[in-house]
Order: sequence, then C-alpha cells, then structure tokens
Amino acid sequence: MSDHQVGKIKAAIVGASGYSGEELLRLLFRHDQVDIVCVTSRQYAGRPVGDVFPRFTGLDLNFSSPSIDEIAESADVAFLALPHGVSAEFAIPLVEKGVKVIDISADFRLKSTEKYLEYYNAEHPAPELLKKAVYGAPERRKEAIKNADLVACPGCYPTSITLPLVPLLKAGLISSEGIISSSMSGVSGAGRKVDLPFIFPECNESVRPYGVVGHRHLPEIEQELAEAAGVDDVAINFIPHLVPTNRGIHSTIIAKLKDGVSADQIREAWNSSYADAPFVRVLPAGRLADTKNVTLTNYCEIACATDAHTGNVILSSAIDNLTKGAAGQAVQNMNIVFGFDEKAGLL
Amino acid sequence: MSDHQVGKIKAAIVGASGYSGEELLRLLFRHDQVDIVCVTSRQYAGRPVGDVFPRFTGLDLNFSSPSIDEIAESADVAFLALPHGVSAEFAIPLVEKGVKVIDISADFRLKSTEKYLEYYNAEHPAPELLKKAVYGAPERRKEAIKNADLVACPGCYPTSITLPLVPLLKAGLISSEGIISSSMSGVSGAGRKVDLPFIFPECNESVRPYGVVGHRHLPEIEQELAEAAGVDDVAINFIPHLVPTNRGIHSTIIAKLKDGVSADQIREAWNSSYADAPFVRVLPAGRLADTKNVTLTNYCEIACATDAHTGNVILSSAIDNLTKGAAGQAVQNMNIVFGFDEKAGLL
Amino acid sequence: MSDHQVGKIKAAIVGASGYSGEELLRLLFRHDQVDIVCVTSRQYAGRPVGDVFPRFTGLDLNFSSPSIDEIAESADVAFLALPHGVSAEFAIPLVEKGVKVIDISADFRLKSTEKYLEYYNAEHPAPELLKKAVYGAPERRKEAIKNADLVACPGCYPTSITLPLVPLLKAGLISSEGIISSSMSGVSGAGRKVDLPFIFPECNESVRPYGVVGHRHLPEIEQELAEAAGVDDVAINFIPHLVPTNRGIHSTIIAKLKDGVSADQIREAWNSSYADAPFVRVLPAGRLADTKNVTLTNYCEIACATDAHTGNVILSSAIDNLTKGAAGQAVQNMNIVFGFDEKAGLL
Amino acid sequence: MSDHQVGKIKAAIVGASGYSGEELLRLLFRHDQVDIVCVTSRQYAGRPVGDVFPRFTGLDLNFSSPSIDEIAESADVAFLALPHGVSAEFAIPLVEKGVKVIDISADFRLKSTEKYLEYYNAEHPAPELLKKAVYGAPERRKEAIKNADLVACPGCYPTSITLPLVPLLKAGLISSEGIISSSMSGVSGAGRKVDLPFIFPECNESVRPYGVVGHRHLPEIEQELAEAAGVDDVAINFIPHLVPTNRGIHSTIIAKLKDGVSADQIREAWNSSYADAPFVRVLPAGRLADTKNVTLTNYCEIACATDAHTGNVILSSAIDNLTKGAAGQAVQNMNIVFGFDEKAGLL
Repeated sequence: MSDHQVGKIKAAIVGASGYSGEELLRLLFRHDQVDIVCVTSRQYAGRPVGDVFPRFTGLDLNFSSPSIDEIAESADVAFLALPHGVSAEFAIPLVEKGVKVIDISADFRLKSTEKYLEYYNAEHPAPELLKKAVYGAPERRKEAIKNADLVACPGCYPTSITLPLVPLLKAGLISSEGIISSSMSGVSGAGRKVDLPFIFPECNESVRPYGVVGHRHLPEIEQELAEAAGVDDVAINFIPHLVPTNRGIHSTIIAKLKDGVSADQIREAWNSSYADAPFVRVLPAGRLADTKNVTLTNYCEIACATDAHTGNVILSSAIDNLTKGAAGQAVQNMNIVFGFDEKAGLL
Repeated sequence: MSDHQVGKIKAAIVGASGYSGEELLRLLFRHDQVDIVCVTSRQYAGRPVGDVFPRFTGLDLNFSSPSIDEIAESADVAFLALPHGVSAEFAIPLVEKGVKVIDISADFRLKSTEKYLEYYNAEHPAPELLKKAVYGAPERRKEAIKNADLVACPGCYPTSITLPLVPLLKAGLISSEGIISSSMSGVSGAGRKVDLPFIFPECNESVRPYGVVGHRHLPEIEQELAEAAGVDDVAINFIPHLVPTNRGIHSTIIAKLKDGVSADQIREAWNSSYADAPFVRVLPAGRLADTKNVTLTNYCEIACATDAHTGNVILSSAIDNLTKGAAGQAVQNMNIVFGFDEKAGLL
Repeated sequence: MSDHQVGKIKAAIVGASGYSGEELLRLLFRHDQVDIVCVTSRQYAGRPVGDVFPRFTGLDLNFSSPSIDEIAESADVAFLALPHGVSAEFAIPLVEKGVKVIDISADFRLKSTEKYLEYYNAEHPAPELLKKAVYGAPERRKEAIKNADLVACPGCYPTSITLPLVPLLKAGLISSEGIISSSMSGVSGAGRKVDLPFIFPECNESVRPYGVVGHRHLPEIEQELAEAAGVDDVAINFIPHLVPTNRGIHSTIIAKLKDGVSADQIREAWNSSYADAPFVRVLPAGRLADTKNVTLTNYCEIACATDAHTGNVILSSAIDNLTKGAAGQAVQNMNIVFGFDEKAGLL
Repeated sequence: MSDHQVGKIKAAIVGASGYSGEELLRLLFRHDQVDIVCVTSRQYAGRPVGDVFPRFTGLDLNFSSPSIDEIAESADVAFLALPHGVSAEFAIPLVEKGVKVIDISADFRLKSTEKYLEYYNAEHPAPELLKKAVYGAPERRKEAIKNADLVACPGCYPTSITLPLVPLLKAGLISSEGIISSSMSGVSGAGRKVDLPFIFPECNESVRPYGVVGHRHLPEIEQELAEAAGVDDVAINFIPHLVPTNRGIHSTIIAKLKDGVSADQIREAWNSSYADAPFVRVLPAGRLADTKNVTLTNYCEIACATDAHTGNVILSSAIDNLTKGAAGQAVQNMNIVFGFDEKAGLL
C-alpha cells in the first residue's frame, strides 16, 4: 500500500476492459479524492484506454498488465472487475499486502461455500478470506464496510431486489414465503460479450426471459432475504429478462402482505430504513419505478402498490445495472471504507 | 348484407385509424377471399388511407364515414376497431341487419355486466347482445365461433396469458390460486396515442410497470381462467410493463404446480390441447418464448420450466400484440365464421 | 434440373444461415408457385431451420449440405446467399446443369473484372460466366432477366441509390458529376455477424459512418449510373452509416439539377420510368421517404425536393435492406425468370 | 443582479420544462460554483421539478413563475430556454438590469434581421440588443464571450457542422462552395414535443429526413461559414434526419478539397485551432465520429477522410444535442463569462 497525499488515494482497476471497468473509469475520473494509478488488462496491455473505450479517446492512460506486487505497491485500493474464480486469485495477496479490495465479481458474495460450489461449479477459491469479506450493501452494512479489508459488491439483480424487500422482511410486513421477482435488464448486463444472442438484430424488438431457474444471483438474493427475515432459508422465484435497452434493471416483486398492512406502512418502513441512505429514492403513492429515471446515476428508486383482491403487494424498483448495480456501488463502498463523503464522485 | 361473389366476402373496417386498423388493412389486403369495401374514420373521412398510414401510400382507398345502414348494405362482415362503449353502438344494428361482427374492442368480452361496470365505469351498453356474443378464442371456442353473429376478440394481454394457462387448469396440472403474470408490451399496445409518456425519448431506454392493480384486462383474464379451472372465481396478479419495442407481448406466468407434475406433462397437455391449433407453437424443453420470433405473425409461442425449489412452474408466452393480440386473431375468427381455411391470409 | 408440376418450381437456398437466407425462407414459404427443396448450410447441416431461426420452430425442414450435383438434380432454381468468391464456385456448375441461378452475392454485379480485383482483392473467379450474367434490376432490365441463366441481384445500397437516380440521368435532368449519397442502414445490413461493433450496447444510441471511402458497393453504383448517364465513368461519394434499427436503408442523395428543372419534372420522369414497376412508389410533393413505411415489404419509396439556393435536388429513398435490398428482389427476379406474376409472394 | 458569495453565483433557468431545461438542471446541480435560485415554468409553477422530470424526484426545488424583476433581483445569470420570440422579451429587461443572459433560443444567433424575418416569419424583436449579443461559440469567440452581457448559444446542428468546418475554411484547405451536410439527430432534438411523428412507434425502426430545404439552422450555419471563409455568402445544403436514438447528432459533411490538401493537413489545422479547446476531440486517422462516444458529455468529436477519386473530403462530427448542442455549451459560456474554469461542472 502506497503512501498518498492527504485526502487523495490511489486506485487500481483490475480487469478493466468490460462495461463495469468503463463505468468505473467514468466515475473515478470525476472523483476529486482518487487518482487512477493503473488500469489492467492482459488483452489490451500497452494500449490507450481510448482504443478500447472510444469515449476516452485522447486520455493519457494506457492499459497495463502489472504483477500483483506492482499493483500492491502503487495502489491503496483495488477494484476487481474480473471473472469469478480469477478475482479471488488477486484478492488474497492484495488483502495480505494491505490494499483495500473492492470486488465486483461474485467470489465473495455467498457466505456458504456449498452454495458457491452448487452455483459456480467450483470449490470456493478462498474460504478463509470469505469469512473476512463484507457483503457491500451500503444501506445495511455501513459499519462493517467501514472496517472491511475486502468488500464484495452485490450483484446487479440482487441490489434491485433486496433494497425494496429487506426492510419489509425485517419489519415483518410481508411473508418471506412465495416471493417472486420478475426482473428486466438492459443488454449491458450481459457484459461486453461478443455472442450471437447479443448482436443488435437479435436483441432489438425482442423481449425474452432467460436463466429462469437457478440463475447465479438466486442464492445471493435468498441469502440476504433469509438474513432479513431471520429465518434459515428463503426460496423465491427470480426470473430475469433481457429487454432492448443499454442500461437499467427493473424488478417487479410480488409478495404476500401480512394481514392489514397498507402501502403507507410499506413506504414508512422504507423511509425509516433509508433515512440516511443517499441513493435510495422512495417514490410517493401513485408512482412506480422507471429505469430511465435512474440510468447513469447511483440511485435505486422503489415504489409499491397493494392489491386487495389477492392480498399481495407489488414492489417496483429500478437501478442502473452498471452504476448502482456495479461500479457506482463499488465507488460508494470505497467512499465508506476511506471515510469520504458517501456520495463523493457519484452526483 | 350484400350479395357477393362465391368465395369472396366484403369487409368493412370501422374505426380504422389506429394501429389495429392498420394491421387489419395489412392482413386483409393479402387475403384472397376478402374485398375491403369500406374503411371508416370520422376524423379522416375523404382522405386516402396512405395519408394516415404512409405505408399504404398510392393505394386507391379512402377513409369514409358511412351511416350504419350504408355499412350494412355493403358489407358481409364488419370489423369494429372502436373505443369501448362506441363499439356496442355499431354492433347492435349491424348484427340486426345480418352483418357478421368481429369486435376488437372490449365491449363484449366480459360476461358479467357487473364487472363491466366496475372496470369500465359505465353500464353495459348492450346486455342483450352480450348474451349472444362469443368470446373469440379460436383455440377453445371454434365451434361456437362458427355460428356466432358477434365475435368478441380477446384482448392482447389475455391472449398471451390464457393460451398457456387454460389447458393446464383444465387438466388440473396447476393450482388456480396464486397465479401471477408479469407481462411486457411494446409501445404500439398503447395505441396510436399522442401523449407525453409515449413519445420516443420517454419510452426508449425505459422499462416500467403500469396499471399493476385493476387493469381492464384483469377481469377478462380471470373470467377465462375461472371457466377453465371450473371454479367461480380466480384472483390473479396481472402486472403489465411498457418496454421499448414497437410490437410484441411477452408474458411470464408463475403458477403453483400440483404435486409431481413435470414439465413434460405440461408440454403434453399443450400439445394435446393445441393439436389442431395452427397458431400455437409449443416450444421444446430448454427454450423460452421471445417476442422477436412472433412479431408480424399470428403465432403464440409458449414454453415452460419447472422449479423444484419453489414447486412453481414458470410459463413463457409471446405474441404480436397487433396480430394475434388484435387484428390477426380477428381475421382468424372471420375465417372460422365464414368457413374459410383458418390460416387464410395469415401465413 | 428437375421435372416439376405445372406452375410449381423447386427452389434451393444455398448458404441459408444468414439474414438474407432467413428472409428468403420467409418469402418463399408464402409463395404459391415455389417448393423449397433444400436449404443448405455446412455449419448447420442436419439441424432443423428452427434451431437457427427460432421464428421457424416447428417447421419440418432441415439444413442440409448436398453436393452441387444433388442441388442440380433437385432444384429448378438456386438462390445463392454465399460470401463473394464462394458464390461463383456454385454458380458455374449450376448454370451448366441448367439450374437458374439467382445470386445474392457480389460475384456477378461488376462488369469490370478490374474493378472486381480492385475492390474484392481477388481475380474474378468466373469471367466467362460474368459475361452471361444479368444485373438484376427488374425496373430496368426485365427483358434481359426473363432470359437470364444467372441473375446477379443488386446490392442493398445500390438498389436504394440507383432507383431514384437512373431515370433522372437518363432523362438528362441532373448532372452526373458531383453526386453524393449519404445512406443509413439498419444493423441487419452487416449480416448475422458476431463481432464487437455489432453487439447491442455498441449499436443502440449510436450513429456512425463507416467505409466512407472505397466501400464495395461504390463501383457497382458508379457502373449503373455511368450506363444511365451514357458516359464512361461516374465518380460519386457514397457514405454509408450504421443506425440503430433492425432493417431499412435510407439514402439521401444530392445532385446538381440541370438548369430550370423542377421537382415536378423529377416526379414525372420517375412516374414515366416506373409506370410498370410494381415496387417503386413515387411520393407526392411534400413527402420524403421513411424506412418504416417499407420495412418487411419489397417497396422502394422515392421522393425529391429541389433547393433553389444551391441549385441542387435532394432525393430521398427507402427500402428494406433484406427484402428489396436482397431476398425480395431475388424473388422478384425469380418471378420474372419463370414467367410468374412479378409480385407473386411479395405482397 | 444580486450580491453573491465569493466564487458562487446565482442562476435562474427560465422556461425550464423541456429537455434543455432538464439538462441544464442536471449540469448545474453538479456545478460547485452555481446555486440554482429559480426554475421557471408558467405551466408547472408551484410544482416540484420532480413532478415534471421524475429523475429529480425528491429534490427540494419547485417551478415558479416570477416576474422579470424578481428574476433580476435574485439571479446573477439567467439561462433562457424559451421559444424564439419569447426569449427576447426576457433578454431585453434582464440585460438592462445587469443580469448576464445565456440564451439557448434562436433569437440572437442571426446577425441579419432580414434573415431572421425570412426564416422565423417575424420582425426581429430586439434589433438593438442583437448588436450587443455575442454568438457563443467558445472555440472561436472566447474573448468576446468574456465580456458579453448576452450570449446567444449556437444551435445544435450548427455546433456539429461549424466546429469541423470553420478551421478548414479559415485555413483555405477547402472550398466554401458546394458544401453539404447530412446530419442525423436523436428524437430529443425535437424537444419534449407531444406530436404524432414523435411517439415511439412512429420513430423506432424509422430513419427519415425532414426540413431538407430551408431549415431554420441553415442561415445560422451559413453565417458562420461565410465569416470563416471571409466571403459575403455561403450556400450549403443542410439535410437533417431523425434517427431512433434519444440523444446525439452526427454530421457527415462533404466539401471540395483545395488541390493537394491531405487528411493530415486537415487534422493539423484542427489540432492547431483547437489546442486550447477542452471539448473538441480530433480523432486520429482511421477513426470516424460516433454519437455514442459523446452522449452525456460536452465533447464534440471530429474526424476526416479524403477521397482521391472525387477530390472531396468527408468530415464526421458527433455531439450530444442536449449537452454540447444546448445546455452544456450554455454552461461552458457561463463559465467563460464569470471567469470560472471553462470545464467546471462539465467533466
């Protein structure tokens, strides 16, 4: 870990050639208290970031492929935007060397190594470190994040689903049984992946579900909901869809209301839980969430409507999958770790 | 009702200046056994259809505003693409005068006049005629449609929801309780409506639910599901969303499986029910529906996946809201009424 | 060449796994006088077409990989939707064996083998056959097409550019010098190509030119314009752009008006040239072309506006790149070759 | 004009309910040296800005409808995002009262009142003030802007066209005769206008020119080009198109190269002219502009390719129509007027 100017830290972005990496660059360039010291990519090492992300053409910054030691020497914080499995290989030595690690991958989200094995088809690569990792939901773990060496940033879908649900489960306003989330994501959610299903004519004018059973975000969502509900296990249906937008996730969540609970009580529970959460926006009665109101921001907006004829509540939430769902939440976590204003660089 | 050439009928399109009217024109122009004799619009009377629908520029066909008597004299069949309430005003005298009426509006879909009052805020305009009307779901009421004087074409969302569900309820493979449909529609589903929420920059890069409680298609869906289940009432959550496509509805439906029911049994029930249904496409295991595979066709594709960990089945269906969801199904019903090949003009 | 039922021909689609192949399938399925006897693809041989084009799921038709002899034995006509260079390898023996060849590739469009070498970086693979090939612009070479053994279907951009320009050059209404075409194509124009620039998030919300100097369609356009103008050479600027639509090409063409020529004279020249052309739609004064009015049709719509202050005319044309720009025009040519109604299967 | 804290000014946004107003809000909220003191709208006076722009839900800021005196008392600078004609009514008294006016409307762009009459069908509302107004192209009038009381911000299309052309005309590298710009704009360029041509299904999958002769931006472009070329008049063809994106303008400009001029010389002229221009990005050889690289930024990227076979150069430029084409450039001008860093609030 490097010495650094008072109030200014040095950041490495490791595995920066995807959309999350691009979004991290966009956000960190604007952040007054951060210097980007390295942006790594094996594939593009030596090339200007503007070659890979034309939006940054002209910037004097090249991809590099440093050793982990080199990263550790130069950086105070490392953002890992790597495939799962690979991320842990970097996280272990970086944490050892005192670099704060903000991990955008899935390696440290699941507390259960059994679940990791089941959903990622591999033994967990770092079970010891996993115990130290903090699941980086700033709205409910701010204190733990402050002292974390390794923050596991939540997945995009889990962020959109747990933010509306957790306060309601904690307050006992809804049942933890029978919850369903029908979620829709823009195509950047698939990453910068060059594959037939993601070329323009296959996505435009198309709406389609995928991964409707056993999506890798499912155990992460269920883990967080179970904790909130104070139960051992929660089983939900999580049904993601691909829709033709660049950015944005909308989750429509249906849950069984406890007897007599009103929409006002739902909003009160949210307002109370999120009184100090700068990026959660509780919508007034009559409004529902819309992805276009949050794209390119770190906000999550949440809304609800109760349905007397079924006794269910319909929750509606929207985030930008690359900002609040990935890079923005990572920066928010970095802000908390380093004692900056939680909103720094994010407004 | 006019005399007509053997095998060729005369059709009027009443209220033809919206997207359903345009789609009716597109389909009927291609239909070998139909002559379009009048295309009505008060607003555009006297103007060529190409002025309103530039796709038809150069066609020698003008909008007109004939009296009901004039329509009755010239046409064998009248398609009503009118607002609810107005449709009944035309349907009553046209049926009396022996014109077959294919109604795309909502006036004759609900058997219960109480539900009509509740959801449309008006007394039903023609309760006597309502008793004679046939709900035009060709896959389950073909015999009744053959002899109908008035066919009430199903709504777009109800078509996408009842086609996958009805056979499963009839066969007792799923519970009729707790059904949820999360449906997504392209913007043409809002009609050719000039209103702020529907201008391009408000829809593009936007995903949003609307009408999540008490949508007008809800009682229609519940009516059909109750009949299929053989129960008095079914209460579901139907949650429509607007997504940035021109055409297409995808419905994701979650239902509780009866004990031991497998996905194969679901597909068998569908294949059996739809053996003679030319426009229902049951997808094989591993596939889910996608709107882009059905746009500009009269197909509904349906698929399923079972989820052992919740005991639910996820159904996925896709239609073109303007074709199978409106004009195409109307033409299919006309084909049945007049004894034509059910697929005529629709392939 | 096979025997065939009176009035019904047998068609092979060779190299059918791209978007032009899919569009050929869509159109030929609807064509009353055509049976599809084989659909070839080395990559997908043995698999149902519905596996590759989910729109055709359930159709009883598999890709195959027959020898050229087998194609020749089974088919009266072969559509070649192959890469340039490969197309000629099929065309030579098929023509020899008496199969009518409708080529969608670029192999037989350029009369000059020097230009072929310059723009395709290869010696022309079949210079003898090239002499017999007819450039398949039905609006100006119908008689030659009737007797052609090999029809070279025009490229998509050339179709959109030559249809408005040729009659004006022939009539001497505009100068052949200084013509500019700024053309915009939907992404299906790039083929079903899996490459980073064509994934959804790289195309959506993007407008960009490409190939602005030396595009392969340039010599084809110039060849046709020179012939129309009765000069040895024409040099134009042809500037293609990629825009976020699935289908459609719009060409905006600027040309110097001869002294005193009016917009009415332009439209008269078009109307006169295209009096018998069923798929050219001359728009009235005040209207300009719009891709959305022609998508999924075989129409080309053309319009003009004169600008007194520069002395130029602005021409506006729109086609569907996959229909009139590829498969539709191929079917139109087949209709002419076999003496069918030119519009058969295309309305 | 109000007293204000050192380094912090008070801004009014007058006529803030359109997309330019929304973009001004987005940018000024982020600007450290600006307090927004009033946001005016007759239609929405009294309502929170979040009601009109849901993106700002929860912000403690209401639309108001103050008198001009009240605006003048509270604000140091007024941004006018008003219709032409109306803008002048505000500009005259505000300038008199010492408020710096940054006008986004068209009222003060044209130096010639004759041209104003010709293109806006009205006598110029403030010919005296017009003489004092500075055309706010920061890249070529920074010194004049510093001392301006009234800055007339360039139109969106003119910005995208004059930035690449002006240095080349000044350096004599291209002819001022025969210039053509084919420009494509996203739909937000039409404003937040509720009109049939702008609803989603009429824009999506559509590409179309409009206003191809006599567009109101034409005389503005020609005025600036004539000045750069040092001639009395320049006549160009400016051909705008609507394409289905939310934001972004791409201009493709064709001009006659002076003998022997190379692409390198073009780029040198740009690099030299724009050495101190923070928001102009000259692309390297081989690259062309792309709207997606500049959306939501204040950048204009410019590129060129020379075509030996016609002797023309093709210029390619891209801006965000709402940022560099409207609100961003307005903020840039404000920064210059008040002596702030030109980039403040814009990175």
